[in-house]
Amino acid sequence: MPERETDKRIIKKLETEAEEIINMAKSKKNPKVSIPLRGLSNVYFDKKDKIIKLGDKQQTRTFFNIGQAKKFMQTFLVANACKEIIETGKTTSIRDLYYMTKHTIGETEENTFDEQSESDPIIEDIEVSFDALREELHLFASSKGAIVGDITIVDSGDDIDCRKQGSGGHAIPSICEADVIQFKECEAKYVLFIEKDAVWRRFNEDKFWKKHKCIIIHGQGVPPRGVRRLLRRMTDELKLPLYVLVDADPWGLYIYSVIKQGSINLAYESVRMAVPSARFIGLSAMDWEKYKLPKEVIIRLNEEDKRRIKEILKYPWFQKPEWQKELHYMVEKNVKLELEALSRKHISFITDTYLPERIEKKQWLE
Amino acid sequence: MPERETDKRIIKKLETEAEEIINMAKSKKNPKVSIPLRGLSNVYFDKKDKIIKLGDKQQTRTFFNIGQAKKFMQTFLVANACKEIIETGKTTSIRDLYYMTKHTIGETEENTFDEQSESDPIIEDIEVSFDALREELHLFASSKGAIVGDITIVDSGDDIDCRKQGSGGHAIPSICEADVIQFKECEAKYVLFIEKDAVWRRFNEDKFWKKHKCIIIHGQGVPPRGVRRLLRRMTDELKLPLYVLVDADPWGLYIYSVIKQGSINLAYESVRMAVPSARFIGLSAMDWEKYKLPKEVIIRLNEEDKRRIKEILKYPWFQKPEWQKELHYMVEKNVKLELEALSRKHISFITDTYLPERIEKKQWLE
Repeated sequence: MPERETDKRIIKKLETEAEEIINMAKSKKNPKVSIPLRGLSNVYFDKKDKIIKLGDKQQTRTFFNIGQAKKFMQTFLVANACKEIIETGKTTSIRDLYYMTKHTIGETEENTFDEQSESDPIIEDIEVSFDALREELHLFASSKGAIVGDITIVDSGDDIDCRKQGSGGHAIPSICEADVIQFKECEAKYVLFIEKDAVWRRFNEDKFWKKHKCIIIHGQGVPPRGVRRLLRRMTDELKLPLYVLVDADPWGLYIYSVIKQGSINLAYESVRMAVPSARFIGLSAMDWEKYKLPKEVIIRLNEEDKRRIKEILKYPWFQKPEWQKELHYMVEKNVKLELEALSRKHISFITDTYLPERIEKKQWLE
Repeated sequence: MPERETDKRIIKKLETEAEEIINMAKSKKNPKVSIPLRGLSNVYFDKKDKIIKLGDKQQTRTFFNIGQAKKFMQTFLVANACKEIIETGKTTSIRDLYYMTKHTIGETEENTFDEQSESDPIIEDIEVSFDALREELHLFASSKGAIVGDITIVDSGDDIDCRKQGSGGHAIPSICEADVIQFKECEAKYVLFIEKDAVWRRFNEDKFWKKHKCIIIHGQGVPPRGVRRLLRRMTDELKLPLYVLVDADPWGLYIYSVIKQGSINLAYESVRMAVPSARFIGLSAMDWEKYKLPKEVIIRLNEEDKRRIKEILKYPWFQKPEWQKELHYMVEKNVKLELEALSRKHISFITDTYLPERIEKKQWLE
């Protein structure tokens, strides 16, 4: 039996659910399980908490139903595998879990799963139904991203002094729950999330985090779950403000949006991953004029960009006048900008002028 | 003026080349520069050194030539930008370099570069012509990959004890040259490169590197330049054997092949990046029968796989009978296997049985 409180809690949940099913069967009822719907129809923006949440629509999965029997079986197969993994005290990948649960049924040619695309949604079902993060089920996703800065963290028992992580930084693991990662000495005044690893490297090389007492993190594009969890825990537990630095384009705004409000796909995780207090510190399309950048650094919007901006203009969390102004500017002037455009001023313009100025003058959007 | 020997050497080269061009112009000759051809037509497998190399075919780029004038100008624009970056002592991304060198020419509507796809090949031209690694030009690519194991490395002046890197590991920087990364205490007996970060995590969680005194590295798929340079330097300077663990499929063989012989695209870098002594430690398609794995873990070859295997069968470095046997087995039995397939035995079968057994019994291919 595992010793950790989270493990005990999750195993208890899995066992209780399984026992209920067995009891239904014993009392000759049709065994069923209720699973919250995860589609767009059951997702909404909670204006009070300022995050994307899952509604309360449920679907029922029953055993005696030709269309549902296989999924019913898969649900408990995956739940059982998760329980076994938790009991070993190890963690594993969702790909591994697929292989562990894939087998041919009896003498048939029928497999429990044919593709991982079948087992992944079942994992999500279990996450939602049992109110357990994937990480709490001991499953990890691909890991991306790195951290350096004015903090010491503990990763699986090892002290990681993020002030002494060289040019590479500490690789952020996929599972950043409190039993894996703890925070120790922290002098940082804020956390800066940077979309691109190449730009992060500029900040690290210039020792920006030392001069400005902060923590810098990148997630190689859209941050993976581990990075999002880490950002959330840092704002919650260390009470640090979070600044998000992305390209001035719809993709950058999407990344900011995922960090701040959560994503529609993972709406059920927003409560534990989103950082509604996150601040957009740049890049603004208007920086082109503000910093007198030459016209050749401008990237023109393509059709997909225009379509995306139209959508973004309608999102409830982009309704503030400043946001609407930013988005309309992008469309009317036909301007996208990448963070690297600032290098036309000089190589370290972003670290020695742009960012310090934006933060000092409180030039962020929320 | 920079103090580092490499920097001085590269700047000297850049200046010498530029002076030659100026002298040609002064003496009313058509300024020209010779650049080794990088296409397939100038790539060959050196049987003695066992790496893919660039031949000695050259192209000439002249100034007074309508078709070459722009490229000529771009070449010296990029060379000049590299010189400036080296002189600042900083490093930057190839994206940044594109922005730094992109500008509108005079009163025209003509840009020096319109897309990064124009400046990237120019960087490669300079690498080849000036016999300078991109990293020595202070340019970095995207970074991927992590390291843990029985070694302490120095990264930009910081000691990184790879025995104490928690679950995440140290993120491998893009530039792994000797002036950035140095090796200190090392008790490791070998280096293990693992294709997938999720499988690497299994090895790290099981503290495989501690039990077997080794270094484990992943590169998230095809390893980036930094990881390849690190592997090469470890085998050269620490005299450690390198084992490569990949999926049993054409993609896995490609990754192994890139590490061992170099790639056709980067043939000019093989001499400094390839590890001809690298050993393929698995996965073998034959492991399916050897380890009595169930048939449902098999993935069938698609048309692209079949085409790739036909090509691989002809590569000079896959001509040994054992390799031909492996490849023919894959085709005849129609079997691909992923590393995760071993988890069907049990979650840590790969770390407690498979790999130790393969190494102990010397079951590798070269």
